[in-house]
Amino acid sequence: MAAHSNASTQESYVDVLIVGAGPAGVMCANALVHAGINVRIVDKRPEGLSAGQADGLQPRSLEILQSYGLAEQLLKEGSSIHRMATYEPAQDGRLKRVRLSAAMLAPNARWNFGIGLSQNRIEDVFLASMETKGLKLERATTPTSLKMSEQINEIADPQSYVNTVVLQRAGKEGTSDSEIVHAKFVLGADGAHSWVRKVLNIRAEGSTSNAVWGVIDLLPDTDLPDIRNITYVHSSEGMLFMIPRERDLIRIYVQQPNNSDVIDPATGRADKNKTSPEKILAQVRKIMHPYRMEVKDNLIDWWTIYVVGQRVAERYSVHDRTLIAGDACHTHSPKAGQGMNAALGDSHNLAWKLTYVLKGWANMSLLRTYESERRTFAEDLINFDKQWSQLFMAKRQSSEHPDGVTHEQFVGMMKKFNSFVSGIGIRYSPSAIVCPQHQAIAPNMVVGERVIPQIFICAADGRPVELHDLLPADSRFKILVFGGDIAVAEDLQTLREVINATIQPGNFVHRFGRDGAVFDMLCFSSGKQQNVNYADFPPFYGSHWSKAFLDDILLTGQVGGGGYEKYGIDKHAGAVVIVRPDGYIGMVAPLSVHGVEEITAYFDNFLI
Amino acid sequence: MAAHSNASTQESYVDVLIVGAGPAGVMCANALVHAGINVRIVDKRPEGLSAGQADGLQPRSLEILQSYGLAEQLLKEGSSIHRMATYEPAQDGRLKRVRLSAAMLAPNARWNFGIGLSQNRIEDVFLASMETKGLKLERATTPTSLKMSEQINEIADPQSYVNTVVLQRAGKEGTSDSEIVHAKFVLGADGAHSWVRKVLNIRAEGSTSNAVWGVIDLLPDTDLPDIRNITYVHSSEGMLFMIPRERDLIRIYVQQPNNSDVIDPATGRADKNKTSPEKILAQVRKIMHPYRMEVKDNLIDWWTIYVVGQRVAERYSVHDRTLIAGDACHTHSPKAGQGMNAALGDSHNLAWKLTYVLKGWANMSLLRTYESERRTFAEDLINFDKQWSQLFMAKRQSSEHPDGVTHEQFVGMMKKFNSFVSGIGIRYSPSAIVCPQHQAIAPNMVVGERVIPQIFICAADGRPVELHDLLPADSRFKILVFGGDIAVAEDLQTLREVINATIQPGNFVHRFGRDGAVFDMLCFSSGKQQNVNYADFPPFYGSHWSKAFLDDILLTGQVGGGGYEKYGIDKHAGAVVIVRPDGYIGMVAPLSVHGVEEITAYFDNFLI
Ligand SMILES: Cc1cc2nc3c(=O)[nH]c(=O)nc-3n(C[C@H](O)[C@H](O)[C@H](O)COP(=O)(O)OP(=O)(O)OC[C@H]3O[C@@H](n4cnc5c(N)ncnc54)[C@H](O)[C@@H]3O)c2cc1C
Ligand SMILES: Cc1cc2nc3c(=O)[nH]c(=O)nc-3n(C[C@H](O)[C@H](O)[C@H](O)COP(=O)(O)OP(=O)(O)OC[C@H]3O[C@@H](n4cnc5c(N)ncnc54)[C@H](O)[C@@H]3O)c2cc1C
Repeated sequence: MAAHSNASTQESYVDVLIVGAGPAGVMCANALVHAGINVRIVDKRPEGLSAGQADGLQPRSLEILQSYGLAEQLLKEGSSIHRMATYEPAQDGRLKRVRLSAAMLAPNARWNFGIGLSQNRIEDVFLASMETKGLKLERATTPTSLKMSEQINEIADPQSYVNTVVLQRAGKEGTSDSEIVHAKFVLGADGAHSWVRKVLNIRAEGSTSNAVWGVIDLLPDTDLPDIRNITYVHSSEGMLFMIPRERDLIRIYVQQPNNSDVIDPATGRADKNKTSPEKILAQVRKIMHPYRMEVKDNLIDWWTIYVVGQRVAERYSVHDRTLIAGDACHTHSPKAGQGMNAALGDSHNLAWKLTYVLKGWANMSLLRTYESERRTFAEDLINFDKQWSQLFMAKRQSSEHPDGVTHEQFVGMMKKFNSFVSGIGIRYSPSAIVCPQHQAIAPNMVVGERVIPQIFICAADGRPVELHDLLPADSRFKILVFGGDIAVAEDLQTLREVINATIQPGNFVHRFGRDGAVFDMLCFSSGKQQNVNYADFPPFYGSHWSKAFLDDILLTGQVGGGGYEKYGIDKHAGAVVIVRPDGYIGMVAPLSVHGVEEITAYFDNFLI
Repeated sequence: MAAHSNASTQESYVDVLIVGAGPAGVMCANALVHAGINVRIVDKRPEGLSAGQADGLQPRSLEILQSYGLAEQLLKEGSSIHRMATYEPAQDGRLKRVRLSAAMLAPNARWNFGIGLSQNRIEDVFLASMETKGLKLERATTPTSLKMSEQINEIADPQSYVNTVVLQRAGKEGTSDSEIVHAKFVLGADGAHSWVRKVLNIRAEGSTSNAVWGVIDLLPDTDLPDIRNITYVHSSEGMLFMIPRERDLIRIYVQQPNNSDVIDPATGRADKNKTSPEKILAQVRKIMHPYRMEVKDNLIDWWTIYVVGQRVAERYSVHDRTLIAGDACHTHSPKAGQGMNAALGDSHNLAWKLTYVLKGWANMSLLRTYESERRTFAEDLINFDKQWSQLFMAKRQSSEHPDGVTHEQFVGMMKKFNSFVSGIGIRYSPSAIVCPQHQAIAPNMVVGERVIPQIFICAADGRPVELHDLLPADSRFKILVFGGDIAVAEDLQTLREVINATIQPGNFVHRFGRDGAVFDMLCFSSGKQQNVNYADFPPFYGSHWSKAFLDDILLTGQVGGGGYEKYGIDKHAGAVVIVRPDGYIGMVAPLSVHGVEEITAYFDNFLI
């Protein structure tokens, strides 16, 4: 170290160093520490956010959070958003509501709605969860240099500390000390202006739009009746949309007029000093007229302005040893509320892969799928965002604009985009870990997509259980054995053979199972409660009464039943469905001894 | 004090002193401290239970716990019990399952099942909840004397410290100190052999049966397929029943053979020293033969034996100033699992009444209804228990016993008893606080019963809300205004008049409302989302967007709707339903100005 370093320069080793504690960073840190990985996370901010930035969670993010046991709290605290209202000028020029509809059209989402809640509350939930495992965020800490070994053999060895990072920690009264951290992996989760991305020389491809948006969180005093719904207002003065959130607050996004001149020509970024909440509110009022919008109790919780950039990083890592996630990889407009959700999705995708590689359970090649899966998603997101934005800005059909967008066109597009907005529609393409070859056996267990929720009945005690709750983010692949009707002798016989095959020395349980750490097996029979007992299930890998299920209706009749049908699985032929640790379907295989061999071959692609 | 007292004898004052920290005691303490009442709770045990005693919560107790925000945790931890299996000897004399059915037939329960969980876990949840309000259980503390003032005027004044209790606190190394506590009210929640009851000279009426039961909690190793269901086994060797519980444990209750001679002739109580887990298990095995019952990992969590007593205290208090609750008031057999549930129900009934009297909001007469409501319930419980026990012991119909109980008779009785077992069927009789006069306006808002669950749609944001979640145990009466269809001008006009009447100086809001502490008003319109906005509701007492609801279906179609119909309320005429702080319906009134006067008269019965 040079002369600048002071006496307290330390040197240390860590498996994963995460830079940035926004949604992407805390999601990854929490997932890794719960998986037993040695991880640290630093953020340059001396304190957490207190308000503002991203504003909500989409249905798929809620499902993901649930897999970490974190959804309930957020569901309670946030404002659930069920409806969407659209206002447009009527014949007489006055604004009027033209439609009130469901905010989300994601009928198979577990929670068919999003929640409005500020980013800091979501970060706090992760920080608290991390702390239960002893991991604390290190604040006021910034990396000042990052170097990676150039030795091919080191780069290929996941146990090698290929990254050397110097961290600078700001102390009290302006002091600071530094530390040299040797990290096997580094994750840059440091936001849109990512320092890590720049150091890695990764270009963010795309463009800066000329749309400038003002954003303001406030306690409203208004006569607009839809103040607790997502509300889109298109008037001759421009457009805005509002999102209800916690503590009776709302957020308003309002497009700034073209003449507003708030861009700093030097940086191309919007300059907050050139506007004010009053100016933003004035624009809001113009658009909303004749509805009122005042601020109750002077409560403006947060505000900002910005230029929408639509960019995707050209790569997501250097040699899969220094990676980036979240806004560091992609930025886009706020209209579809994807920023935080995409960031959570990135880290959720990455965390189990890092875990497998670091534990020596998988080849380094597994990490390649992080970029292939998530960068494709980000590109789709930007395309979606562009179309969505155009739709948004487009003139409505009227006598003045006969070829404007009709209400029906708008609604049609909304439907199409809904699987995106909800996050439910993500489908990862075929790869080493996505094998749709036998898709036809279970057409609605779509390989590459997340599992559709369904309630099964626990065979031993008749309890209803949501399949999603059997798929926690616990680092394990879930082997869902749809074993046919075990009250039928032939079905039972086949199931016995298949179960027996799974534990043969050459097959996946033995070769890759690592004493229960890698696989969790669950059995689902199409048999009914009055005919099938728990004890009728042949013992399977990890057998326990709580892991055998029936596709039946609860005895009191409220829920359950129809699962085989929903997934398109034959009631006797059955199927085996492999669900990845992140809840996405990796493979569907026939319920047969040969199927077991194919599963083994699937895992042999990437497991060690 | 006499020469025995040592230097540390203190003297202190408290509003309510609770003796005993079983379910009755902790429920009352928690409710009072959350209501802002000055309360202390002591227990003679130096430490909490670690296992054993009562074993489960019925559906109604879950609803009650939910009203205190405590159900979720217990639902997660406990073992939910959905099914009941019955075994009887078949023709060949071998045991066989004759029926598998729903464990609870309480179709309108919010949770249509009970949970198996040990008493100590349930107590812990209350203790933790109390502590969030700064109330700590004082352990190793026993009252040694209790005296009440005999001054009529003091007894009539709830603010007078009429009780003088000497507490003895065992310290470390055998030391002890004592304290003189002056308490406005004392609650004896000190169990079946209640010291408080004895000091008050209250007789417990009833009898000791000659049925002796062994109870054992263990980790089973068995081939009985119904080990995770409630299972009743009647064989020629006797009868037993099993209840699944947390951590894969089960509880077995087994009737002891008549010749077992475990009663201590001196006390009439069972003597644990005269038997052993092995002896109890031997009896279990005899009855279960040919099914096996071994203990896995040697894990016997707890065991005991006892003689069933069926008694009810002749009174529940002396002058409503020293009261008793729970097992101190009533004891019965464990078969219907009522002990803990009845104890929770007693204290839940008492706590808000004590609160109202102590805050000066209600007359002392309100406390009279504690005994009238809960003692009647206990008598019903004992009668139920007797019939239930007889049914249990009765021989089954067979060629040997042609006039034995048939399977159909048994099932018929079970159905009849289910509202008891579930706790849902409790109906308090007419009294100052139970006024069924206008029952016909809302026939299924049964006055004296708890509210049937129903999902309404929040008018402002389209969110589904369970009515039960609007009825927390927060000490307030809930005024549910079923205001008709406010999209219809006449309905709206009537609603306006009624709402206006409520706030007139002579009416209940003004006279008894105490700035929002006593009443919470909620409005339910039969209008539909597409026709009615939140802003269309006339402002009502405590208006807020989150308090106006529609009886409509969620826009995405899954839940809601049919509430007016379910309750039997006319869609235009409406009704006003008064729900007591404990969730029981106190009154139904017409939606009219005259109705408001009747509501005022109702409250004038007991509020100040
Ligand atoms: C000022 C601002 C306003 C925003 N407004 C909106 C909005 O109105 N609507 C919306 O949907 N989204 C908004 N976003 C975007 C939204 O916050 C992100 O899309 C989302 O949080 C993605 O999370 P992330 O973890 O990738 O990045 P971020 O949430 O940006 O987190 C990055 C973290 O890295 C830290 N960091 C940055 N550089 C370094 C460094 N060199 N060393 C250490 N730590 C570093 C930062 O302090 C921050 O905590 C805003 C973001 C910002 C920064
Ligand atoms: C040993 C035992 C075994 C039981 N077994 C079963 C069973 O198998 N199945 C079942 O359903 N129910 C059983 N019960 C009954 C069940 O526990 C009660 O029905 C239920 O807990 C009622 O709660 P309670 O609060 O009224 O009384 P309890 O739970 O009995 O609580 C009374 C509390 O008061 C304390 N106490 C007693 N006397 C004093 C005093 N003088 N000073 C201070 N504190 C005092 C006790 O330490 C205890 O904590 C059992 C009870 C006991 C005591």
